[in-house]
Formats: sequence, structure tokens, C-alpha cells
Amino acid sequence: MKIGFLQTRPVFGETGKNVEGAIKGLSRLEADLMVLPELFNSGYQFRDKAEARGLAEEIGEDIDRGPTVKRLIEAAGDLNMFIAAGLPERDGKKIYNSAVLVGPNGVSGHYRKAHLFAGEKKIFNKGDMPFTVQKIGKVRVGLMICFDWLFPEVTRTLALKGADIILHPSNLVLPNCPDSMPVRSLENRVFAVTANRVGTEERIAGESLTFIGKSQITGPTGRILHRAPRGRAASCVLEIDPRAARDKHITPANHVLKDRRTDLYEN
Amino acid sequence: MKIGFLQTRPVFGETGKNVEGAIKGLSRLEADLMVLPELFNSGYQFRDKAEARGLAEEIGEDIDRGPTVKRLIEAAGDLNMFIAAGLPERDGKKIYNSAVLVGPNGVSGHYRKAHLFAGEKKIFNKGDMPFTVQKIGKVRVGLMICFDWLFPEVTRTLALKGADIILHPSNLVLPNCPDSMPVRSLENRVFAVTANRVGTEERIAGESLTFIGKSQITGPTGRILHRAPRGRAASCVLEIDPRAARDKHITPANHVLKDRRTDLYEN
Repeated sequence: MKIGFLQTRPVFGETGKNVEGAIKGLSRLEADLMVLPELFNSGYQFRDKAEARGLAEEIGEDIDRGPTVKRLIEAAGDLNMFIAAGLPERDGKKIYNSAVLVGPNGVSGHYRKAHLFAGEKKIFNKGDMPFTVQKIGKVRVGLMICFDWLFPEVTRTLALKGADIILHPSNLVLPNCPDSMPVRSLENRVFAVTANRVGTEERIAGESLTFIGKSQITGPTGRILHRAPRGRAASCVLEIDPRAARDKHITPANHVLKDRRTDLYEN
Repeated sequence: MKIGFLQTRPVFGETGKNVEGAIKGLSRLEADLMVLPELFNSGYQFRDKAEARGLAEEIGEDIDRGPTVKRLIEAAGDLNMFIAAGLPERDGKKIYNSAVLVGPNGVSGHYRKAHLFAGEKKIFNKGDMPFTVQKIGKVRVGLMICFDWLFPEVTRTLALKGADIILHPSNLVLPNCPDSMPVRSLENRVFAVTANRVGTEERIAGESLTFIGKSQITGPTGRILHRAPRGRAASCVLEIDPRAARDKHITPANHVLKDRRTDLYEN
């Protein structure tokens, strides 16, 4: 299976251009599954809820679906690939920092960011959907978004639900995540694809955000299989064997999920 | 507060010498709290349960207490320090891979390894004690042993119970732990002291184990504050401010414990 990421440089508010730019990038690659950054179509730094609402789209049902998801589904059909991507979602009065997994037949996964980072708490509603696992053929994938990485419960929950590959659209500004994802992969023996963006946004006075790039793919033994550079757009496609994530043994006698002592853990 | 570790080279079965050697090492240091390796008095590679039973000691109550713990308490009084150390424990018919925290007034913490590594499953009973937190003055410390590190639930449980410093006696043979402990510290904003041993044991045909050293202290921001070398005995004492572990904010708006979405996690 060929999986990868696109590390993009979105321009705030230029939704149409950002979407077309990403699809152009995808069209140059041969892959079965690609991950795009968090909020890949809109950019990150919303001044207020109203601005986010204006750039947000409905994901829910076909008839109301916004242009970004419709276009991603079309591209998934044209390119015969699955695409995971983050975007601002509007659902009635609520706005979420969401991600979708789309394939040629439509939306197969939908997730709303559970752990909002810093100023996002002023813009978005907290995610209210369970962490779920979707099948792509025989392979099981699970979505999480950016700051979710800090909470080991997220990747653990996805692994317990059977995820072989964690799809991780991100807008990272802190340096910790790329160095920590090998641990998330190792402790759950899963693949993880973190797709980050690059560029700087200075839309709020005194809050200049530079996104660090360093998108990466980690494997079930905790190895970094590929890491993109800082500071510039990039892409990566790797051939992996997702079955490697089905062997949860770190030694012949130790299974990273079955060895858990849930009788002793505090939740 | 001055905390540290002793990275020792125990000789299998030479319990008395290993204990006195460690105490000699401690007596050269000025510290409030020191961590010794897992099974620091006995060595690691037991051929069978009978051999482990012969080297195991009771920890339980004063009257039955074995010589290692008695001697550690005596040393804690002489040196005016707290000492965390791992040792094989006998309790009736059961044998545990245990750790104690002792101070001048006796045993203040006792833990039995919950996650047994590889061949340990043939020797020891699974730990049956909760993860608990002990107070040293105003500072709260929690014990875990070696392979427990792989399971994020352990440090999380200790942090939820209020631990400021994780005391982590270890006998590491795999390279992953020292590189992963920064993540354990970061995700819980705690200090962690991993005390590993060095040396090679070849007591079981075809199972040569080399312990990697690299004992280390990590801080609440995920930084490695000190790492010992591979391959040789070493020690470290650092002055830390344990109050740094009380601030669980990774940003002003994000608290690593209160931001948890237990409504969405699978246990």
C-alpha cells in the first residue's frame, strides 16, 4: 500500500486556490492514501468565530455538502486514491475543526478535533464524535488532528479500535510532535502519517505563527520512515505493508495491547 | 530538591556486595532522593523461579523484612536521603519484581511491577498493587519499574494521582526507553528519574543480555536534563524545583490533565 502526505503552504482564506493547489500536488503522485494538513483549505488563524463560520463548510449529507469535500471526492475518483484532510466544519450554529476521509465513493470518515489547542478554544466547538476506525480494503485507518497527539489516550483508543494507520492532519507550531510521534507508533505498534503545513500567519496582532513542516511517517517499531524538511512545501509517498501493524508483539511474550493492566489504570 | 540516580553494575547473586556497593556510591553523593536500578541487589537473569525465590526477600512488615530493605532504611537514616530501589520480593508462595521507596523512618512506598517483560513472565507473578503516590515533604513521587514505561497509562495514572516525580528503577536492554521518557514527562508535565544498570549477563544459554545504561532525568517540558553514558557505572544528582511539575499548562489555555476527553477514550 502506498501512503503519504502533502506538506502544503495554504494562503489564509483562499479556499478555492488552496484546494486546487493541493489536488494538483496529489495528481503528481501515485498513492493509495494521502494525508493533507489540518484546515488545509482555509488556513489557520481565524480572527473570530464569524470569520471561521464564513470559511467553514458543511460535511454532513450529500445535499448540503460544501465545495471542498465535494471537490476532494471528485479528485479521489479521478486519482483513484483515498484522501484525509482537515477543514473548518459548520453544523448549524456550531463550528468544528474537522477532518474527513474521502474516497471515490464519498466520505468514509469524519472526525471533529477533540483537543483544541490554545486560541482554537475561542473559535471552535469541542469535538463531539467518537474516535472511529474506517476500512480501506482490508486496512483500517483512524483520524486524529494535530494537538490530539499529546494525549496518548487518542492513538491508544484508535489502536484498540483496530487502526493500522493513524491519519494525522496537523498545523504544528511547537517542536514536540514530530519527536513524539515515534512513541505513539511504538506504544501501539501502528503506522502514523502526520501531514503538517508550512508558512507564517500574522493575522492577529502580536500572534505570528510559523508552522514547522517536518511532516512525517512513523512505523510500528517506532522508526521514522520519512520526515519532510522544515520551511518548504514537500510531499512523500512510501510503500508500506500495513500488516506490520497487526503484530502487536514487542517481544514474543509481550503484546502492547493485551499486556495492558486496565485493572490498575486510572481513567 | 536534589534528586538523582546511581547507574550500577550488579553481579548476579552477590546480593550483599551489590547492596553495600550501591550504598557506598550513595554515600559519596549529597541528595534528597536517589533512584537505584531494578533488581539492583540480585541481578536480573534468574534461571528459574526457585533461583529467584532464593534471592528474593520479604518487604511487608518490619519483623519479617529482608536484609536489603533493612540495610537501605539504615543507609537512608545515615545519609538523610530517600532511596527508591528495585528488588525481588517474596510474599508467601508468590515472587514479585518489586520496588520500594525507603526513608529514614522506614518503607514509605512499595510497588510490584505490573507489566512483566519477556522471560520475567516465567519467573515473577504479575504486580497486584495499585500505582500509588507517596509524599516526601511536600513533593509527591510515584514508583514504576522498567517496562512499565511502554504503557502510557502508567505514568498517566501516577500523574492523575498527583505525582511530581516518577521514580523508575530499570534494567533496560532495548534502546527505546531513554528516547521515549521525554514524551512521558511532557504529556504529564512531570519529572522522571530512570535508573538503569550496566553490564552483561549470560546466565541462560543463548540469552546474553547487555544492559544499556543511559539512565536519565527528564523534566516537565520533555527536556532531557541529564543522561548517563552507556556501558559504565555512573551517577547524577540534579537540583530541581519540583513545583515545576505542578503547572500542567502546556499553553495558557491547555492543561494536560484537565483537557483530557475521558468521554471519548476507550479503556
